[in-house]
Amino acid sequence: MASSGNEGDQVGRSAGAPAVVRVGVLGAGNVGKALLSLLLEEAQSIEGRTGVRLELAGVAVAHPSRPRSSIPAELLTGDAKGLVTDPSVDVVVELIGGLEPARSLLEAAIGAGKPVVTANKELIAEHGAELATSAASAGVDLFYEAAVAGAIPIIRPLRESLAGEKLRRVMGIVNGTTNFILTTMSEEGHSYTQALAEAQRLGLAERDPTADVDGYDAAAKAAILASLAFGCEVVSSDVAREGISSVDPVDVDFAGRLGYVVKLLAVAERIDAGTAASQDAKEISVRVHPAMLPRTHPLASVRGAFNAVFVEGEAAGQLMLYGSGAGGRPTASAVLGDLIDAAHHLRAGFSARPTPRTRVRMHPADDLRSAWYLNIDVADRPGVLASVASVFGEHAVSIRSMEQVGMGNEARLIFVTHVARQGDLMRTLDGLSRLEVVDRIGGVLRIVGDEEA
Amino acid sequence: MASSGNEGDQVGRSAGAPAVVRVGVLGAGNVGKALLSLLLEEAQSIEGRTGVRLELAGVAVAHPSRPRSSIPAELLTGDAKGLVTDPSVDVVVELIGGLEPARSLLEAAIGAGKPVVTANKELIAEHGAELATSAASAGVDLFYEAAVAGAIPIIRPLRESLAGEKLRRVMGIVNGTTNFILTTMSEEGHSYTQALAEAQRLGLAERDPTADVDGYDAAAKAAILASLAFGCEVVSSDVAREGISSVDPVDVDFAGRLGYVVKLLAVAERIDAGTAASQDAKEISVRVHPAMLPRTHPLASVRGAFNAVFVEGEAAGQLMLYGSGAGGRPTASAVLGDLIDAAHHLRAGFSARPTPRTRVRMHPADDLRSAWYLNIDVADRPGVLASVASVFGEHAVSIRSMEQVGMGNEARLIFVTHVARQGDLMRTLDGLSRLEVVDRIGGVLRIVGDEEA
Repeated sequence: MASSGNEGDQVGRSAGAPAVVRVGVLGAGNVGKALLSLLLEEAQSIEGRTGVRLELAGVAVAHPSRPRSSIPAELLTGDAKGLVTDPSVDVVVELIGGLEPARSLLEAAIGAGKPVVTANKELIAEHGAELATSAASAGVDLFYEAAVAGAIPIIRPLRESLAGEKLRRVMGIVNGTTNFILTTMSEEGHSYTQALAEAQRLGLAERDPTADVDGYDAAAKAAILASLAFGCEVVSSDVAREGISSVDPVDVDFAGRLGYVVKLLAVAERIDAGTAASQDAKEISVRVHPAMLPRTHPLASVRGAFNAVFVEGEAAGQLMLYGSGAGGRPTASAVLGDLIDAAHHLRAGFSARPTPRTRVRMHPADDLRSAWYLNIDVADRPGVLASVASVFGEHAVSIRSMEQVGMGNEARLIFVTHVARQGDLMRTLDGLSRLEVVDRIGGVLRIVGDEEA
Repeated sequence: MASSGNEGDQVGRSAGAPAVVRVGVLGAGNVGKALLSLLLEEAQSIEGRTGVRLELAGVAVAHPSRPRSSIPAELLTGDAKGLVTDPSVDVVVELIGGLEPARSLLEAAIGAGKPVVTANKELIAEHGAELATSAASAGVDLFYEAAVAGAIPIIRPLRESLAGEKLRRVMGIVNGTTNFILTTMSEEGHSYTQALAEAQRLGLAERDPTADVDGYDAAAKAAILASLAFGCEVVSSDVAREGISSVDPVDVDFAGRLGYVVKLLAVAERIDAGTAASQDAKEISVRVHPAMLPRTHPLASVRGAFNAVFVEGEAAGQLMLYGSGAGGRPTASAVLGDLIDAAHHLRAGFSARPTPRTRVRMHPADDLRSAWYLNIDVADRPGVLASVASVFGEHAVSIRSMEQVGMGNEARLIFVTHVARQGDLMRTLDGLSRLEVVDRIGGVLRIVGDEEA
């Protein structure tokens, strides 16, 4: 165990007197700055609340000579590797983002026997399993509460509170940008393009919004949630991904009239086979896609840039954890919670248990079952509905409701199906697109959260 | 550290091989039965998910000879004290409820060096501080996630994830019975009596509903939440308490028209003095009362028997944790999460840190500030509004809105005030009751959750 740099203070099993735990921070962006301000200005009040004195040992940044009003110059360094391996640094916090050099620096810290805390979703989604293995062999903590849904406690509840729970499904609104865009489309009637521009104006979307609107950010979080919920190794590229850029305000509006709201969901789901699924070869589905949720569903009330994760367990029933999913201070708060836990564990010579991993199979997308919403423009003449309906019937997709909206020479048909196999639905769409009377297949959205239908 | 009863298996720092942890359970009521079914039927799958094998050592019940289909007879005992002190029992779970003998049994278990898990809110609200002190000196865990809001992870997030966070306020819907009654009144237009009868018919309310409807249950949970959120010792009798039995469906209806819903809230709040409050003598307010919440507030969408806790922190912002607040299986799930954590800690010779406690002062109720809703019946004649309004003015209570509803010879005045001191509002009510033109002061409700108003 590393000894602290302070004379007399020893990091060790000294339950009474507060020991100093020295923290090395990598990166001073938005989250880094918020964390440093907490560490520099609130160290005493944090010690009062927790019994742990956190002392900032150093901050590694790309340009250490650039003046920064909020960070004392003597704490800045350009040598991240040197900070990580400095024997006076007890715990390392990584807030650089991206895969490298973040990964090598965390491995170096773990190799030096130091607990690590990170907010890096890409890294955990891609290399979480290897990092966890390294941390377990070194007997140190690897914490990443801030990597999914910012300030919302979700990693620790999944790892600890729900450890005994057989989970069925975890569904999250884990990207604030897309939730803001969809909320604005729904409540203001804006188009996708207008809503995106509004998000960009407010600093909620990047100039290049691809990572958010195409679901890459949500997919990384879905991979992390799936890995924890089902004790397996799921990486970003395992996640089936659809973004929101093709969501049409017309469909958002129809969703509202039918009692639904459109949300971008990250879903990790255990699929029980028809017969008892064996524990060794369980099947899961992990995906990101827009979906229609009943307005009464707890996730439906998550508006604007907020995040929430909805968890369904066999004994616990339905849970939802809601809060700020991004932003410097909320994310720094989650990092700080991890840091305090890691410091406590370090003093006691303890580290959190690694989650045992089992093998899983990805459930074939064609076999996924849900209800669907379809918006189809057809020629407005007799017999059209019959030919359209017969295509549904041919592919064993049963219609729950149909509404016809006149539009001059055309008619718009709004279908809601009963629960159907995704493969059957796709073949239905294919069949419909071949019908001469079908002019255009518009919105096609899964309906989630009223599975009893 | 107690050795397990199984030959060869040793409870200790053996990260690899699964050690058996033997569990003694006190009580076999609703929650106990659900926990036993998880322990007996799912032990293997829990071991697969967590690496911990939990083995049921025994179940202490009042009538051990009464046949129970779900519990093997050889595990039943009438000797709770004997089970707690049996050297082959590693961890004790208390599900008896009430103060005694629960308290003595837990102290005996702690005294014997055993981690304890309880779902007993009365006990923790009353003697949580002493039990925590005993557990800390014995170096064992005292866990009670199930004591507040059933399956919802709230104790652990407050203790760990939010440990570094300076919390402003914790507001919970922590009693499912009263939330069901208020939801039914709001959505079905039922009277309090009708809604209570419906709750009793569904088994959601006791035949004597006092503990729920008069807020005693919520007050115990408020005391526990306040103690954790502010690191202090608050007991049930410190909690200001108003129940829901006088909530009138008329006011629930007006609340709806004004954009609010009526909820029974458990509130624990830090009050900042006008000048910077010193950390040593911070003031808090802990209370249970019905209140009007804006319909857009996350707690407003918590319907029926569900629970939720809304947390406001300086860095984390707003968080909400939502789920099933009662019921055998959800509560047993929370107990099981604690049990797995305690078992892991026991194997590693670790125990969770106790929260440092600071002294707090209870903020005087008269100084509490909120907006208010008032429903006043007056004689319908000229000049009445002027004399009523002048009483508000005399006591420095500023009116935000007023609506008059005609009722024959009478008029009903619905007032919403700006934020006002509770003492001033009470003096306003006193002054109004002395006015000859005031026939009746009906509903008086705090408005919470739009403090910017």
